[in-house]
Amino acid sequence: MSGQAPARFDAVTVNSVQDLSLVDGGTRRMIERRSALLGPSYRLQYSRPVHPVRAKGTRLWDASGEELLDAYNNVPCVGHANERVVRAMSDQLSMINTNTRYLQDEVVAYAEALLSTFHPALNRAMFVCTGSEANDLAVRVARQVTGQNGIIASQFAYHGNTSLVSSFSPAGGPGTILDRDVRLVPAPDSYRMRGIDLGEWFAAQVQAQIDDLASRGVGLAAFIVDGVFSTDGIHPADDGVLRRAAEVVRRAGGLFILDEVQSGFGRTGDHLWGYERFGILPDLVTLGKPMANGLPVAGVVGQWDLFEDFGARVPYFNTFGGGNACIAAAHEVLNIVQDSGVLSNVATQGRRLRGEMERILSRAGRATDVRGAGLYIGVEFSRSDPALTPDPQVTGQVVDGMREEGVLISAAGPNGNVLKIRPPLVFDDADADRFLSSFERVVRRVGV
Amino acid sequence: MSGQAPARFDAVTVNSVQDLSLVDGGTRRMIERRSALLGPSYRLQYSRPVHPVRAKGTRLWDASGEELLDAYNNVPCVGHANERVVRAMSDQLSMINTNTRYLQDEVVAYAEALLSTFHPALNRAMFVCTGSEANDLAVRVARQVTGQNGIIASQFAYHGNTSLVSSFSPAGGPGTILDRDVRLVPAPDSYRMRGIDLGEWFAAQVQAQIDDLASRGVGLAAFIVDGVFSTDGIHPADDGVLRRAAEVVRRAGGLFILDEVQSGFGRTGDHLWGYERFGILPDLVTLGKPMANGLPVAGVVGQWDLFEDFGARVPYFNTFGGGNACIAAAHEVLNIVQDSGVLSNVATQGRRLRGEMERILSRAGRATDVRGAGLYIGVEFSRSDPALTPDPQVTGQVVDGMREEGVLISAAGPNGNVLKIRPPLVFDDADADRFLSSFERVVRRVGV
Repeated sequence: MSGQAPARFDAVTVNSVQDLSLVDGGTRRMIERRSALLGPSYRLQYSRPVHPVRAKGTRLWDASGEELLDAYNNVPCVGHANERVVRAMSDQLSMINTNTRYLQDEVVAYAEALLSTFHPALNRAMFVCTGSEANDLAVRVARQVTGQNGIIASQFAYHGNTSLVSSFSPAGGPGTILDRDVRLVPAPDSYRMRGIDLGEWFAAQVQAQIDDLASRGVGLAAFIVDGVFSTDGIHPADDGVLRRAAEVVRRAGGLFILDEVQSGFGRTGDHLWGYERFGILPDLVTLGKPMANGLPVAGVVGQWDLFEDFGARVPYFNTFGGGNACIAAAHEVLNIVQDSGVLSNVATQGRRLRGEMERILSRAGRATDVRGAGLYIGVEFSRSDPALTPDPQVTGQVVDGMREEGVLISAAGPNGNVLKIRPPLVFDDADADRFLSSFERVVRRVGV
Repeated sequence: MSGQAPARFDAVTVNSVQDLSLVDGGTRRMIERRSALLGPSYRLQYSRPVHPVRAKGTRLWDASGEELLDAYNNVPCVGHANERVVRAMSDQLSMINTNTRYLQDEVVAYAEALLSTFHPALNRAMFVCTGSEANDLAVRVARQVTGQNGIIASQFAYHGNTSLVSSFSPAGGPGTILDRDVRLVPAPDSYRMRGIDLGEWFAAQVQAQIDDLASRGVGLAAFIVDGVFSTDGIHPADDGVLRRAAEVVRRAGGLFILDEVQSGFGRTGDHLWGYERFGILPDLVTLGKPMANGLPVAGVVGQWDLFEDFGARVPYFNTFGGGNACIAAAHEVLNIVQDSGVLSNVATQGRRLRGEMERILSRAGRATDVRGAGLYIGVEFSRSDPALTPDPQVTGQVVDGMREEGVLISAAGPNGNVLKIRPPLVFDDADADRFLSSFERVVRRVGV
């Protein structure tokens, strides 16, 4: 049943708290068993959690046999259980799977293919297993090469779960301890700040934090930003909004780290990388989630002198990072994303979804903002007052309502009032049709 | 050719620097291409690096067709390209591979099976992707639940590569920055400290560092130790050496974290877990490397109240940690290690290798110490002076000499003078025969 107001949100992924009265006895026992084995860090999505046992393309099937449309998972970017990726993985795993202390054809070939998609100045790659490790390494590199310690991130950023990375990930929740050399800037929110030069405003925010660090004797190591400001509420930061900020960061001697764990691999449409949309050249780019369609592969791409400087001092080794089998899967993902019309599909479907949702919502006459880039879409719900007071309750009702329609989405933002719509990149016309008809019904039912 | 003295060691894995005059033109070009793409953090093992293109069981085949015996890689614990693990992985990957925001049968079943192998007090598991992430999380948990910041590790510890973990991993090399709240204790070295009560001595070392932290107002969050002191030079710490230290740690309000990334999953023979050999009950145990035979799976096992306390405050989420496909592989590894005489094989082969190497070396009349537990074996080479001055040169010659015999081993320890012998757990009689005859020839040739 939808219409159930979520009692509370957590921040990493905004989740409704389970309502155990909604689930059958078997599911309840599984939730209890899981909780007893894994502990309370493990949260579940939706008032009525999903228990998928099979998946293919953009569809998942629940244990009950119900078919679900996946409009949320960015990780299986070329579709759940993609046969080409499965084959690349299992063929390589049957052949050999070792580590980078040996010469390996796969990691060299993949690094070459991956780097050929970047600006020529971004010509070195290091491989790790998770986006958290990638961001941790990028900031280690930044601190080592700049000799400075300060980090600036966005107000409600989430960059991962290592101790360092969580120290500049306020969205990790109230238990997250920020580092004393971390400063935060508000996201460039085009919905709530209309009519001002956002680029100039944002650069001034960054400069103010650089000045504050400097007043305490702390230099800037890096400014790190997620390419879609996803946990901040999904702000695509179009029109060169970040360009001036990048200049300010460089002038302070810091590095510009673009976290493309969310925005990379074609997610934002047309381009493979978010930085192309921004019109900036980052010093370091971090990659993750969709990189191997769900296998643990992540990386840092950067300019050679940074890695030269860091690597000469630190013999970084990652046992699994760069391993043949996961790299073979990653290479196949890159081939698919580049070869088969995926990028143009992302742009087309993204435009259609945003346009149609805007029409559906405007008919409902409610204060909303539909925004995003490619297939990373946010829909913000607020009350109809002049302050545009966030409305997480309606947002949660739409998330749970869509789930009852068999369509998976979630919510984001510091107030949990922004729908997060982020399907696999192979989301097609039929998927969009189904999504939109469900969305229209839910909007009508919830009374948005 | 062997007999080439390594010019320099690095610390994470002690490596000889490549001698490009030893490799053919194709290999040289590959090394150069790799270096241009990945940068200098990426080191290679052996004066003449290995370029394996196929592997099965305990054997690898080089691009030139040469067969190599693997006496080094602990990660493919049930053998390279193990068919049961490949099948478990690819079957699951074809079916579904998502994350722990959904109910998943695989992670619950595996957590149950894994925890049933631990002491009943160690009854919660969290899953991550790498040993680094596991140790990072364990120390985050320790700091959060104790409210204290101090960390004690061993003098030449290596626990991984995140910023936090490298801050208590001095073996990460001179570029590694230790945290100001980190203190180090020497390893319990049974070779250089004969005739003293090592347990009492070691506890006093730990107490001294606790006192030093306290004198600066820093309480102890955790004492973390690798279950075989591998980078410290492989000290098996038998006979309850750690028991008194554990008491001292608890009295100071700190947690005892046992890093079983190296020592877990039967590596030390007879038992599945190193702590059973130590006769202690750790608060947290971290797992990694062999957990899924080379796929990125790692974890933290601990007592429920610690995870309860941490999880209530921190909604930790790891995108790939606990994913169905890698977990299916891990579960199959656990089945194989438990079911098929692997543990007794480890004990038997380990005893035989140690005994035979001792005999071979004692005939050579050189000051050496052969030690270890199960199939984690160290052979220390020193000069024949009263100080037992470490002899990294001879050690490197033996490593490269074995490589020329087609047998892979490496070296460890702060001085790089301890052979590290750590084959897959399925190393059998024929493997041991081949290993020992090569070892005997190399010892004779090098003139140990």
